[in-house]
Amino acid sequence: MQAELIFTGTELLLGEVLNTHAQYLSQQMAAHGIEVILHTTVGDNWDRLAEVLRFALERADLIITTGGLGPTTDDLTKDTVARVLGVPMVLDDPTLQRLREFMVRQGMPMPESMVRQAYFPAGAIILPNPVGTAPGALLEHRGKVLILLPGPPRELKAMFEESVAPYLASLGNRGMVTRIRLLKVTGISETAVQELIGDLGRQGNPGIAYLAKPGEVHVRISARADDGVAAERMVNGLLEKVRERLAGYIFGTDDDVLEEVVGQLLVRKGVTCALAESCTGGLTAARLTSIPGSSQYFLGSIVAYDNRVKEKVLGVPAATLQAYGAVSQQTAVAMAEGVRTLTGAHLGVSITGIAGPGGGTPVKPVGLTYIALAAPDGTCCREFHFPGHRQAVRQGAANAALNMIRLYLLAQLLSPGHLEGPWRPRLPAG
Amino acid sequence: MQAELIFTGTELLLGEVLNTHAQYLSQQMAAHGIEVILHTTVGDNWDRLAEVLRFALERADLIITTGGLGPTTDDLTKDTVARVLGVPMVLDDPTLQRLREFMVRQGMPMPESMVRQAYFPAGAIILPNPVGTAPGALLEHRGKVLILLPGPPRELKAMFEESVAPYLASLGNRGMVTRIRLLKVTGISETAVQELIGDLGRQGNPGIAYLAKPGEVHVRISARADDGVAAERMVNGLLEKVRERLAGYIFGTDDDVLEEVVGQLLVRKGVTCALAESCTGGLTAARLTSIPGSSQYFLGSIVAYDNRVKEKVLGVPAATLQAYGAVSQQTAVAMAEGVRTLTGAHLGVSITGIAGPGGGTPVKPVGLTYIALAAPDGTCCREFHFPGHRQAVRQGAANAALNMIRLYLLAQLLSPGHLEGPWRPRLPAG
Repeated sequence: MQAELIFTGTELLLGEVLNTHAQYLSQQMAAHGIEVILHTTVGDNWDRLAEVLRFALERADLIITTGGLGPTTDDLTKDTVARVLGVPMVLDDPTLQRLREFMVRQGMPMPESMVRQAYFPAGAIILPNPVGTAPGALLEHRGKVLILLPGPPRELKAMFEESVAPYLASLGNRGMVTRIRLLKVTGISETAVQELIGDLGRQGNPGIAYLAKPGEVHVRISARADDGVAAERMVNGLLEKVRERLAGYIFGTDDDVLEEVVGQLLVRKGVTCALAESCTGGLTAARLTSIPGSSQYFLGSIVAYDNRVKEKVLGVPAATLQAYGAVSQQTAVAMAEGVRTLTGAHLGVSITGIAGPGGGTPVKPVGLTYIALAAPDGTCCREFHFPGHRQAVRQGAANAALNMIRLYLLAQLLSPGHLEGPWRPRLPAG
Repeated sequence: MQAELIFTGTELLLGEVLNTHAQYLSQQMAAHGIEVILHTTVGDNWDRLAEVLRFALERADLIITTGGLGPTTDDLTKDTVARVLGVPMVLDDPTLQRLREFMVRQGMPMPESMVRQAYFPAGAIILPNPVGTAPGALLEHRGKVLILLPGPPRELKAMFEESVAPYLASLGNRGMVTRIRLLKVTGISETAVQELIGDLGRQGNPGIAYLAKPGEVHVRISARADDGVAAERMVNGLLEKVRERLAGYIFGTDDDVLEEVVGQLLVRKGVTCALAESCTGGLTAARLTSIPGSSQYFLGSIVAYDNRVKEKVLGVPAATLQAYGAVSQQTAVAMAEGVRTLTGAHLGVSITGIAGPGGGTPVKPVGLTYIALAAPDGTCCREFHFPGHRQAVRQGAANAALNMIRLYLLAQLLSPGHLEGPWRPRLPAG
């Protein structure tokens, strides 16, 4: 089964609106085993839409249009489809009734233009709009299927999920079904990931693709097969092989985010943490607190941007700052131990680095960052060099700090490769 | 002059990639006065691309393709264009030379497949790729122009700006030119903005559109005219009218962000600030420090997520927390004054609220937030109710805190409507 997607709206051709429907509907088609062969975007232009529809009817089995179902004179899709199929437009009384009731509830008279929304090409199955007034339509015509969806993304998705997905499922899988899983890794570069798993396959079926994010790499595993069960078996088979190779680097799958994974670990272990942030400027705390319920395990962060705050609030000795500088292992250790003492958290984690674009020197270049973790059993510190611009360095540093908490909680922190600085036994505070 | 845009890549038809080229190139066409009549997306399919190209050549004066210029066998665009135009592919020696030099610099041998990148349809003007290896091409053929651009967004944009934009400008404006300006406002709802300026025009020419963001509203003013000067005059005329009506709410235009506007004001006035954040959890500090050079005016933030941190670090009296709760005007004032005293900043700003989804009560619902500003001349506090989910409340609160600094620095904080809580003269600390 082959599909074409037709998007209508002059705003798309003017670049005023990003076409997110193209990705959403393509993903849905792939999930239903329907091959998409073409996307077309046309303006609010009756003749062009008719021309595009005629070509699509020659090539594709399924045609989905978006937009042009509203009450205004710009909204041409239903009329154009009727004209191309050679069927009349007919009034649907139940739809008219629903529109009337809707306006009554709004306490407003029904504008004459709104009646247009109750007309459909003859033979259409009407698709209710759960979150708006413009209904959609589905037409089966000479072995082809046409589905007309509204333009607003919220309405389109609601209608797709409620009416279109069940319809497509009822057709049975007529083609290849795609299944996709993501493995998310941190603490390792994209190149190193590729070296570890590159031989397991690249663009094949099942296939592996890589997406580098600041401080993370997402490994995307996909498979196509005749049915969902077979595609899932292929994806999961490859997933397990990749999982074995990347073991300690994987922090989650699919929709997981590192701050949530760390939060769940802290809850499970009954551990609290606090931060002392310099170059990340509150970003790490903002990420941890973006998770509902984070007050269970996160006590706070001292964003010690200025050295006086490092001294006065965190108790970093002035001599340490003077001798080694704010971006040093010694300062990082003092910050982590300082915030742990100050807040009484089980874990104190500090981040101090040079985010750029200014402030770098040959000895301490932009990207150099020290991250320390102070725990009941001691303190460790690691040196990092994060590539890229200011925001990439900051996100990379926040990720590395969160990952250090994760590894500590998994009791892997002391394994070679994860620890560079010396682990020193904790001295009593004060 | 009418254009068609053709995007190639099976990843687009599978929904693996969001098609951002469609918006970018459409905006560029609008800016150059070129009407885009159709977007088409095809997979890595030689015959389909040829069919789409043939139709485009019948309708449009200008055709731009993206993708398919790389070294692999998937990369079909140049060969297909040559076939459709009926011209041979020819080797471009300077390009081959550049590719060889590039590989030498990388210290790697030149793979045979890479030679493909040096072949072009006969007659092509070669467009250098400032940030990648695959050059683009421009062909003038029987009164039509074809431009072949690479798929990676960074390469596409660099090539467009360096080679295509000057070429299109040299053609002269053959159609309607669009000019767009954004006015960014905060401290006022989208509905209130519409009430203030709705009569100035909506979808006309010039037209006004609204985009609501958490804590901000963007007012988009656009105009189309025969030439850039006329379009700019229309946009700027309407912009000035809107500016008058929205006066105190406007914090910037176009690419401005609130944290940068506030930073510039702090620099200009020689004022330093520090934050005490509860519900925003470091987000406000992270936004302020996302701006390079923010260490000039930002001293730090105490992210006092736990009440013990509010007491111990910020010096909020336990009695205040007990009597009024953490989310109260009294606690907000104590936090703001506490962080001001602690850090020695000119301004101390505090944020305490209920971000949700849990933690709300009938008396203190989700969204309730107190923001206080402690200054040399006194302290004020304002109550807010931010709508929406957790991230919207947090972003709205961060915006409101930044805006309070902006208004204080503009000496407008005490005007009615901006101040609710009592302004109290500053008492000596301790």
